[in-house]
Amino acid sequence: MKAYQEFSREELLELKSELEMAYENAKSMGLKLDMSRGKPAFSQLDMEMDFMDVLDSESSMKTQDGVDVRNYGVLDGIYEAKKLMGDIIGVSADNVIVCGNASLTIMYDTVSRSMTHGVLGSTPWCRLDKVKFLCPVPGYDRHFSISKHFGIEMINIPMTPEGPDMDMVEELVSGDAAVKGSGCVPKYSTPPGDTYSDETVRRLAALKPAAEDFRIYWDNAYAVHHLYDESERQDELLEILGECGKAGNPDMVYEFCSTSKVTFAGAGIAAVASSKANLDEIRRTMTIQTIGYDKVNQLRHVRYFKDLNGIKAHMMKHAALMRPKFEAVLKVLDEELSGLGIGSWTKPNGGYFISFDAMEGCAKAIVAKCKEAGVTLTGAGATYPYGIDPVDSNIRIAPSFPTPEEMAQATDLFVLCVKLVSVDKLLGNI
Amino acid sequence: MKAYQEFSREELLELKSELEMAYENAKSMGLKLDMSRGKPAFSQLDMEMDFMDVLDSESSMKTQDGVDVRNYGVLDGIYEAKKLMGDIIGVSADNVIVCGNASLTIMYDTVSRSMTHGVLGSTPWCRLDKVKFLCPVPGYDRHFSISKHFGIEMINIPMTPEGPDMDMVEELVSGDAAVKGSGCVPKYSTPPGDTYSDETVRRLAALKPAAEDFRIYWDNAYAVHHLYDESERQDELLEILGECGKAGNPDMVYEFCSTSKVTFAGAGIAAVASSKANLDEIRRTMTIQTIGYDKVNQLRHVRYFKDLNGIKAHMMKHAALMRPKFEAVLKVLDEELSGLGIGSWTKPNGGYFISFDAMEGCAKAIVAKCKEAGVTLTGAGATYPYGIDPVDSNIRIAPSFPTPEEMAQATDLFVLCVKLVSVDKLLGNI
Repeated sequence: MKAYQEFSREELLELKSELEMAYENAKSMGLKLDMSRGKPAFSQLDMEMDFMDVLDSESSMKTQDGVDVRNYGVLDGIYEAKKLMGDIIGVSADNVIVCGNASLTIMYDTVSRSMTHGVLGSTPWCRLDKVKFLCPVPGYDRHFSISKHFGIEMINIPMTPEGPDMDMVEELVSGDAAVKGSGCVPKYSTPPGDTYSDETVRRLAALKPAAEDFRIYWDNAYAVHHLYDESERQDELLEILGECGKAGNPDMVYEFCSTSKVTFAGAGIAAVASSKANLDEIRRTMTIQTIGYDKVNQLRHVRYFKDLNGIKAHMMKHAALMRPKFEAVLKVLDEELSGLGIGSWTKPNGGYFISFDAMEGCAKAIVAKCKEAGVTLTGAGATYPYGIDPVDSNIRIAPSFPTPEEMAQATDLFVLCVKLVSVDKLLGNI
Repeated sequence: MKAYQEFSREELLELKSELEMAYENAKSMGLKLDMSRGKPAFSQLDMEMDFMDVLDSESSMKTQDGVDVRNYGVLDGIYEAKKLMGDIIGVSADNVIVCGNASLTIMYDTVSRSMTHGVLGSTPWCRLDKVKFLCPVPGYDRHFSISKHFGIEMINIPMTPEGPDMDMVEELVSGDAAVKGSGCVPKYSTPPGDTYSDETVRRLAALKPAAEDFRIYWDNAYAVHHLYDESERQDELLEILGECGKAGNPDMVYEFCSTSKVTFAGAGIAAVASSKANLDEIRRTMTIQTIGYDKVNQLRHVRYFKDLNGIKAHMMKHAALMRPKFEAVLKVLDEELSGLGIGSWTKPNGGYFISFDAMEGCAKAIVAKCKEAGVTLTGAGATYPYGIDPVDSNIRIAPSFPTPEEMAQATDLFVLCVKLVSVDKLLGNI
């Protein structure tokens, strides 16, 4: 395979006219495919319909402690749900609060509370001139949206396969008291799909923040979302709360997880894990905000899975559905783009995304070309704060929703667009 | 019946010693009854266990618009749930957003958003020196807690059987731009159980607020919670959104409701109703805060009730359970306290509470006496901002949780304590 950069101008022009013909053909196929968001496929949802039978009118509606889940009460979640969610992320039930159906909402509430009430007695952030968050990039757009909504200044931190650039993180966190937080997806990260190394976790846990109210927002969204089984390849993430404790930073992390991509995306349960001091502060606000979250759904989850092994077995069924989709994408990328010098991509062991890096200045044009021919990708730039990818290179691919066949078809079009836009770039047209 | 005030000192002393003996007897019974909170009884929860059978693995999980409720999406609630919640409070589905399991959370979020982002472009309240809310008293403690949490100054507005003192409301709202809101429970109000008159609703709708971001928090928690059927006595509340529109104040009200006391207290659905401008603002924040609430539970509710008539029929079953409890309390109060001049109480047609006014300076002592003998009442003062009843007179009675027999027993003890404390008061001991 010859890299496009080695093509002569004539060769590029000839290639361009071939690609344009192929693109016109593709357009005429009238594709309508969406790989923009990490949405579960219908086949995945159908697979867990027995979840709907777990509780019925004959069921005991009491927890193991004798709490009637139908009534008011139990502010921070039923014990067995705390245990289950704690087991997913490897922390004690005592370090867990179980809330409603979205970890995103708990994160939003956490930032919102910090704005109005500060963190463990610190000055409320709304009274400060400047609050800054560190943002590993490419990263998760919904994290960035929360920061933007609250007027928090976001600083890009480049991701490596080991996690964020830790030299940069350490310097900023210890040198600037306006740096109050850092959001991240540490396992099967959004979108590269990498998992933070033990070294990265330990360096994060040992940070010496200039701000007493600096917090890491550890969004462990894909804790059990492997694509392969244990005998093949699964990433492991070092448990950070324990590391923070050892490093003398017991209160430095809020960890989040949910079953949105375990049971139903719209009807799961979500949890936050942290130190007792942080959880007590959250509970003080929760007392004002709610009498308690949906305990019936918490009980439904516990009865469905029973324990962590139940979840692991369940997630292997998901893996069997997801793996062919990821592999369909990777096969096309490998066959069509390897060695051409116009793109690189990740090969994750889990999660919901593949990250693709095009030649600089090409991402927006590629996404637009795909859209024109009926394939919707996440908007270029979405993986960066403010929607601005400074080199216009990163594209997030979300293979979960379409079928493997549709993913192959969509990726065929995608590589065609990558080639076409790259040729235009090399010809100086972009 | 002779009023206690007409008793001679000797008569009072004699009465006191009789009452003390009776109280010691009562104490020795070892009662353990809770009428402190508006919690549904187990019998009520048992009655709706068929709610658990509405959706199972054979059910269609699609809405009438074809939305799969199991997946992400539909930020502001499925259409048929908007319709159902809108019908409960008499507004169009277009004016409704359906959220999670608690209207309290929507209220909290609404105040919190006003603190950080203002209201339709107004200055965020956290940047103001002073924000004030009007609080009808006696009122709902959880409303007061939200205001207190955000440092909002609360101003007591006395309740009349027609609603809050409207002369005072009009003067404060039009005269002071720091007055940004007023929370209220307009139907079967907490705790008096009165319903705002049409005149009160129209005067509220026609307010001329000094603050452009003044909002009424219309907590229509008991819209369908009658104790009697239509042929007997039910209160009607004038629909306020329409009245606000007519009066040229289309954006002045946020209305809240939920099914917490219709299906399960811990697993209902909640909604906010307002103008398009207000709902659009809420949706803009929701986009950041969530991908969507639990649509499976929304669908479960719609399939269970089908329509407003289904809810009305269901609530008559609740009424059959609740009525004997209210009547048990009222019977004891009538028989034991009428004409004694030491207390007055409300006789609501719906809701969850009875409001009792003791002689001034006696409420705290009565609640303490009851507690000592095993009957827990809501803390005296709870029905006032900051927990301070300026005349220490109001006590909230919540008959929903115990059985009618237990309620009669608890009320027997209550009237005994009222008598005992009143005698002490008249003797100058308090």
